[in-house]
Amino acid sequence: MRLRNKPGAMETIKDNSQYILTDGSLWKGKWQERFAKEQPIHIEVGSGKGQFIVEMAKAHPDINYVSIELQTNAMISVLEKQLVEQLPNLQLLLVNGADLTDFFAEGEVSQIYLNFSDPWPKKKHAKRRLTYKTFLKTYETISKSGAQLHFKTDNQGLFEYSLASLSQYGMVLNQVWLDLHGSDYEGNIMTEYEEKFSAKGQPIYRLEATFKEK
Amino acid sequence: MRLRNKPGAMETIKDNSQYILTDGSLWKGKWQERFAKEQPIHIEVGSGKGQFIVEMAKAHPDINYVSIELQTNAMISVLEKQLVEQLPNLQLLLVNGADLTDFFAEGEVSQIYLNFSDPWPKKKHAKRRLTYKTFLKTYETISKSGAQLHFKTDNQGLFEYSLASLSQYGMVLNQVWLDLHGSDYEGNIMTEYEEKFSAKGQPIYRLEATFKEK
Ligand SMILES: C[S@@+](CC[C@H](N)C(=O)[O-])C[C@H]1O[C@@H](n2cnc3c(N)ncnc32)[C@H](O)[C@@H]1O
Ligand SMILES: C[S@@+](CC[C@H](N)C(=O)[O-])C[C@H]1O[C@@H](n2cnc3c(N)ncnc32)[C@H](O)[C@@H]1O
Repeated sequence: MRLRNKPGAMETIKDNSQYILTDGSLWKGKWQERFAKEQPIHIEVGSGKGQFIVEMAKAHPDINYVSIELQTNAMISVLEKQLVEQLPNLQLLLVNGADLTDFFAEGEVSQIYLNFSDPWPKKKHAKRRLTYKTFLKTYETISKSGAQLHFKTDNQGLFEYSLASLSQYGMVLNQVWLDLHGSDYEGNIMTEYEEKFSAKGQPIYRLEATFKEK
Repeated sequence: MRLRNKPGAMETIKDNSQYILTDGSLWKGKWQERFAKEQPIHIEVGSGKGQFIVEMAKAHPDINYVSIELQTNAMISVLEKQLVEQLPNLQLLLVNGADLTDFFAEGEVSQIYLNFSDPWPKKKHAKRRLTYKTFLKTYETISKSGAQLHFKTDNQGLFEYSLASLSQYGMVLNQVWLDLHGSDYEGNIMTEYEEKFSAKGQPIYRLEATFKEK
């Protein structure tokens, strides 16, 4: 089933509203009701085609996941995967990550994932990077006290920027990997971009950081 | 003139006490008196043979530099360079960097450099790394409020460790370079180790971080 670029995409999204929403504001503060079990909520901002979050949801049934993506075409691929898997701990939200405070209540989220976010290499576009301070503020607002942000990328410039941006925002780096695939890190779940770029021999960077205690 | 490994090394050090000390405690709080001009003091811990700090002192006559090194043989190489250059803004201190609070008063230092510090890769040796928290505490004690630490290394494990260690100590990362020589950073002065390792094609990592305001 390939729904991408088909005119019926929005139709399909509406038909599967048990899994996917285009406006999450009705569920602000009530996300637990959309899952089979009440358990910590982890979100990924910019899921792309969703391999990471779908595999994470399969591997960690004790966590509720929300995939956030702004491109309809990419999100349709996540939906295709979820229609096959029918995971009770995975929800999809087709919105802009900049607006997350409209869709999640304060403290509703336990962990944030960013994977291979668009690098926006030009300095004048720094505000669009998902690790820019306004995004960090958004993530912090919807997160529990002391929540963690986990970030992977192959992009050297974005990783350099993000280390400094997070630190300057007041976050603490728990651990940093400068060559994830050459390390002893266990349980890594690859994203689509990660498979593509690591096949070219590029090192994969990763960090885990914690927001200040509230 | 090659003094290294010569039996007269300690003799030579004593003969040049205007440039080099083996006990700095007499000058604690009075380092400015050992320089031609009163101006900010920057120290390098683990100078090795001293190429970096000698070149820095030549390039920045408006800064007073103190080279700190615990190996006599390495320090003799720094002394040899200084006997040629006779720089009025460079002093040498042959001591262990762990003891810096014995030799500098609180707030006497304006900036700290660490270059290609010994990596001590085994976890049980983490306390010996010059970016371990006890060393950071020592540097912070002798530094002015808001002082910076500048660190370069080719060692991936030590750099990963140091990013997290500094952050967990409460320092803020101002900027991070994951490939210094491939970047647009200007005015880099190479150390002996840097020349050796970058010639092998290894990327050079660098960071600038700030201690908390006191
Ligand atoms: C380079 S792709 C990486 C996709 C996936 N994470 C991976 O690693 O394969 C970045 C994705 O982030 C999405 N994205 C960018 N900015 C976003 C935002 N503000 N909110 C939600 N998604 C965003 C893009 O639409 C794109 O699908
Ligand atoms: C790997 S060498 C690097 C030398 C030089 N910075 C360079 O980049 O070429 C590390 C140096 O740090 C010195 N060192 C290690 N621990 C030290 C300490 N606790 N106090 C002072 N010097 C130390 C060693 O003696 C050695 O000369």
